[in-house]
Amino acid sequence: MTTRGNTNLPGPNGGIDETHDPNLRSWVESANDPTTDFPIQNLPLALCGMTNISSQGVHALVPIGDSFLDLDQLVVCKLLDKRIYPACHFSDFDDGIRAFRQLLSQDSFGWSALRRRLSELLTGRDPALRDNAEFRESCLIARDVVEADGYFESPEPPNYTDFYASIHHATNVGSMFRPDNALLPNYKHIPIGYHGRASSIVPSGTSFHRPVGQTSPPDSDPSAGPGFGPCKLMDYELEMGCVIGRGNALGSPVSIADAESHIFGLCIVNDCSARDLQQWEYVPLGPFLAKNFATTVSPYIVTMEALAPFRIPAYERPASDPRPLPYLTSEANTARGGFDITLEVHLQSAEMAKRSMAPVRLSKGNFRHMYWTFAQMVAHHTVNGCNLQPGDLLASGTISGPTRDSRGSMIELTWDGDPFANPPKLVPGTQRTPIELPTGEKRTFLGDGDTVIMKAYCEREGFRRIGFGECRGTVLPARV
Amino acid sequence: MTTRGNTNLPGPNGGIDETHDPNLRSWVESANDPTTDFPIQNLPLALCGMTNISSQGVHALVPIGDSFLDLDQLVVCKLLDKRIYPACHFSDFDDGIRAFRQLLSQDSFGWSALRRRLSELLTGRDPALRDNAEFRESCLIARDVVEADGYFESPEPPNYTDFYASIHHATNVGSMFRPDNALLPNYKHIPIGYHGRASSIVPSGTSFHRPVGQTSPPDSDPSAGPGFGPCKLMDYELEMGCVIGRGNALGSPVSIADAESHIFGLCIVNDCSARDLQQWEYVPLGPFLAKNFATTVSPYIVTMEALAPFRIPAYERPASDPRPLPYLTSEANTARGGFDITLEVHLQSAEMAKRSMAPVRLSKGNFRHMYWTFAQMVAHHTVNGCNLQPGDLLASGTISGPTRDSRGSMIELTWDGDPFANPPKLVPGTQRTPIELPTGEKRTFLGDGDTVIMKAYCEREGFRRIGFGECRGTVLPARV
Repeated sequence: MTTRGNTNLPGPNGGIDETHDPNLRSWVESANDPTTDFPIQNLPLALCGMTNISSQGVHALVPIGDSFLDLDQLVVCKLLDKRIYPACHFSDFDDGIRAFRQLLSQDSFGWSALRRRLSELLTGRDPALRDNAEFRESCLIARDVVEADGYFESPEPPNYTDFYASIHHATNVGSMFRPDNALLPNYKHIPIGYHGRASSIVPSGTSFHRPVGQTSPPDSDPSAGPGFGPCKLMDYELEMGCVIGRGNALGSPVSIADAESHIFGLCIVNDCSARDLQQWEYVPLGPFLAKNFATTVSPYIVTMEALAPFRIPAYERPASDPRPLPYLTSEANTARGGFDITLEVHLQSAEMAKRSMAPVRLSKGNFRHMYWTFAQMVAHHTVNGCNLQPGDLLASGTISGPTRDSRGSMIELTWDGDPFANPPKLVPGTQRTPIELPTGEKRTFLGDGDTVIMKAYCEREGFRRIGFGECRGTVLPARV
Repeated sequence: MTTRGNTNLPGPNGGIDETHDPNLRSWVESANDPTTDFPIQNLPLALCGMTNISSQGVHALVPIGDSFLDLDQLVVCKLLDKRIYPACHFSDFDDGIRAFRQLLSQDSFGWSALRRRLSELLTGRDPALRDNAEFRESCLIARDVVEADGYFESPEPPNYTDFYASIHHATNVGSMFRPDNALLPNYKHIPIGYHGRASSIVPSGTSFHRPVGQTSPPDSDPSAGPGFGPCKLMDYELEMGCVIGRGNALGSPVSIADAESHIFGLCIVNDCSARDLQQWEYVPLGPFLAKNFATTVSPYIVTMEALAPFRIPAYERPASDPRPLPYLTSEANTARGGFDITLEVHLQSAEMAKRSMAPVRLSKGNFRHMYWTFAQMVAHHTVNGCNLQPGDLLASGTISGPTRDSRGSMIELTWDGDPFANPPKLVPGTQRTPIELPTGEKRTFLGDGDTVIMKAYCEREGFRRIGFGECRGTVLPARV
């Protein structure tokens, strides 16, 4: 086991310090707008490819209000110590990724130093940036410039793992297929996870074609052989992702006490899923082509430090549930392993876009209802010696809450069952109520041209609201 | 679908040309030894980290008899065109990997040009290397120097997928757990596969600790909760891996006709498996911690060109089996999609090593018995638009043949069932005959200190034997 004491949890005052002060204001005026996702208390990190800006390459950017601070340029202007951010000045994709991973792989003292320095520069407590027009010109980029000349990268994870940590989701989905036996016997003991595909992770805003593949033979005639064609049951899955900072060596597990010191921050993940492909392919080795055509992530990694005010206890297990094994248990995790993050999913059909109608909200939930915490997922992932690498993405699995309107996927939202009713109301999976859009269109699953927009944000009395930006993707027709 | 005609299959004369001439001899005398894995007809590629040699960094090496040709040095000496191999002269790990992937991502004309050039230099048809002592000194490295000062890398795959393509293996394993229903309904329609973990892929020779993890509650008392501790059912899985050369863009499937033009070559893979961890964790999302603690690969990628003489028809499906869907079917694949590769697994316990006893052979089989070909796996993997990247590893799944002594894992070798007997002899999974080692030690699964050595080679009348080297790994005791 690694034995560093450098854990973010619980820390003095729960990790809350002067950078979280709700009264901090920035001279970047848009950051003071109470509705912005990116006030000076947030300071998330994004990786941005620049194609037409004086400084090309892949840069690390920090959104602040409606603008972005370019960390590479901050180093060039000697406003940021190279030891804090190992900037890269080459117009080279790989070098940019490498510098980004070096930043991620620092320990949390390095991350803290960066946060404090950015806070200092952006409040103007150190006026070096605020008062120098040339520096501001170099380092501060307007959102429309980034959007015109740049493109966000996903965090380019070396490895991707998807978990299944919402008991509400697992129960809903299990109930559709196994009404008498919704939760499998391992669920309450293991943070169930499986390896996902890293290459098909794409940044928010990427459109993707509806996948083509095999589907189950008709129930009426199993000997007819499988179907083949465009996916008919196209779904999204609302998830949070955790981006690994420091890695661990192969053969060296990370203890639950240390787990959070290996997490750099969180982002939103849409684990797009082709349900009909999945149903036919997934036994006995798990989902494959149903998941690896496009996994969308939001571009901003909100740091664990920024999230400090929004930490809450882990899921409170009923007394009848088994206690997790010791390697999955710590006092700090029980007290503060969870996150209070509000989550919304919105949908805009092509017809709605054409008629300039705003996206409609499909669900509103919260990350607080997870059965397993990210710290438990990290401890479990490495207990056998598996090595995590800087930049790896661990996704939570679909986040569904206890109520119908907090379900994190279409397959759950349009399903008429209620496994939590007493007595349970377990209607077979095929009985569905479509969602009606403002255009009169109906959806049980996603249609071509539909855009899914996921949002996440944290609010708490006495603190500034911070947000994750959005995770957006549009389904294009199948290529046939 | 990509529409390049540049497929390796079937090609004039099945891709066999003067570089396969069995009478070719090299001035590197050890390459002419009839028992070497690396005659001049082979010329596989390895990625080697150099730690104490004049030219540091990660280099591409080609084994020839008992020596290695350093491609980077060949470029330095102007014996190899930079357009054929984009050598890297930096003592930097990432740059070496990048150059290697650039070589992989060429089309097969580039690969052919490299093969021809190496053949020319090593026969002496072009005497430029043979007759220049300084060049020989720079470019030709003795095996013991590489072993003392270097370390082989795995191909460092960006992504790793494991298939399940041996029907004998699937039937054996299925029979243990579902005697009446060994093969699931999708097996004969889909080359079943799942995502593996790239970070825990290690090169041959890497020892690894027995993993620790959760195991099923005892059958006698399911309410007792899961066990926790070192894996008790440690197994190997004999597989062949296919290393992707050219990638494909997200959203652009690779047709079966083009599939082989995306494959650079093959290597041996040991998909080490913790059976007891797997049994408890694998529903419903597939194997996870049972597989991601160490996956060993042989360091030499034997090119598709070198394998041309050893191509054979794909598995001949009985008339009662369903025909694969069109996207998995091509005449060329049916005629020559298979490989005639002999496979052996050897075991040496710590006690045997101490007493200087040679490893004992556990099995001997052949890659010809696979139900699905690598071309079908590539076509299936990408049919939904999934993108493959240069260097990606696709493993075949455990390779078992129709006979007991050709089973590719301990769980099969020590199992007393025979699903192919007529009538089938389906003994429940727990009935096992241990393997007795020459020391008198007995094994139903791997013990601490056991070294597993996998070998692969091709032999055919009228051609030189070529080999894959070996894939070796030792189980160390669990860290507890």
